[in-house]
Amino acid sequence: MSEDAIFKNIPQFTVLRFARYLNFLVTLPDVVEEISSSEMAGIIGIKPTQLRQDFFTLGGFGRQGKKYNVRFLIHRLSEVLALQKPQDMVLAGVGHLGQAIANYQGFERFNLVLRGIFDVNPKLIGLKIRDIQVQDLDELQGFIRQHKIQIGIISTPHQSAQIVCDNMVDAGVKAIWNFSPENVTVPEGVVVQNENLSVGIMNLSYRLNRELA
Amino acid sequence: MSEDAIFKNIPQFTVLRFARYLNFLVTLPDVVEEISSSEMAGIIGIKPTQLRQDFFTLGGFGRQGKKYNVRFLIHRLSEVLALQKPQDMVLAGVGHLGQAIANYQGFERFNLVLRGIFDVNPKLIGLKIRDIQVQDLDELQGFIRQHKIQIGIISTPHQSAQIVCDNMVDAGVKAIWNFSPENVTVPEGVVVQNENLSVGIMNLSYRLNRELA
Repeated sequence: MSEDAIFKNIPQFTVLRFARYLNFLVTLPDVVEEISSSEMAGIIGIKPTQLRQDFFTLGGFGRQGKKYNVRFLIHRLSEVLALQKPQDMVLAGVGHLGQAIANYQGFERFNLVLRGIFDVNPKLIGLKIRDIQVQDLDELQGFIRQHKIQIGIISTPHQSAQIVCDNMVDAGVKAIWNFSPENVTVPEGVVVQNENLSVGIMNLSYRLNRELA
Repeated sequence: MSEDAIFKNIPQFTVLRFARYLNFLVTLPDVVEEISSSEMAGIIGIKPTQLRQDFFTLGGFGRQGKKYNVRFLIHRLSEVLALQKPQDMVLAGVGHLGQAIANYQGFERFNLVLRGIFDVNPKLIGLKIRDIQVQDLDELQGFIRQHKIQIGIISTPHQSAQIVCDNMVDAGVKAIWNFSPENVTVPEGVVVQNENLSVGIMNLSYRLNRELA
């Protein structure tokens, strides 16, 4: 198999662990050039054997007792997760959640750039969030087409989530990140990730009551 | 194996799917008494075979062509996810994200009740969010002890996340749901779920660039 083919078939849980590794590694100060699997596993809170196995998947460099080069790990993980070239995003819905997402400072580290913010509320249009002016939702499709945006974030109320999603997809968005309580659906050739607060807390309830019990 | 033992060993991805099923089922109007696996799978966006297999795990009632009783499914899923008795939560950190979580109306459906909201900012203390008055963070531990709170939600800035976590655990919290960008760690006997925006978007980036490619 080619490397690209291997990268294509990584199970979702492994991808999520890769993301957690990278997310941790980029926070290390520049002076930290190397890190051991046991140190890193301890801080992240996973088993060292799991971490070494994952690093092995990344290219055969997972060995007990060895230190890993931090720059190389960051490079490799960014490559697998396809974060090397910049990716532009738009966000629709400027409630508390939308503002929290728009204000989030972690995206740029991974070359993810929020380009446009949209809402229907005239009171919010023109407001600046981190130097981006909130635009009328009517401008959303034109903006996506003009700037060839691939990622759309939805933080609207649930009633408008599906229509906003359809509009985004119609204008060319290929990945939907949905924070509204409504599960949105997309046609083939588009990926969607529904982030649902209830699902998160139910998982926690299971772990609290079943794993700890 | 006893039923409780079976419930204890469900893989995390299955638990997440159970949560998504339940989250969907509770939104159905009361007149919908039955639903087929293919209908439900279509709306949720998973494979019908996967859904039937999951329902089989739930108690051997997954069969093609058969309709499921909605009330029974809700009952059974709530049981597995340990959502039948009320569970109390506190939240620390009333920024945009904290307000979004505190305002979220989906928790009560699952017997999850937000009891207390805490912040250090004097301007926020006393403010009411959905009838809950924001209290001084100094009151957090006393409140947790007094009300025997088991679940703590952290939406503070990253600098204070670990200390707030430690304080919650010290006062008796057994499950931490962390939304700050800082991964928090907990001692044995406590579960933690770190919800990290960066991890979510990296997963989406992978799916966009690797799965669709």
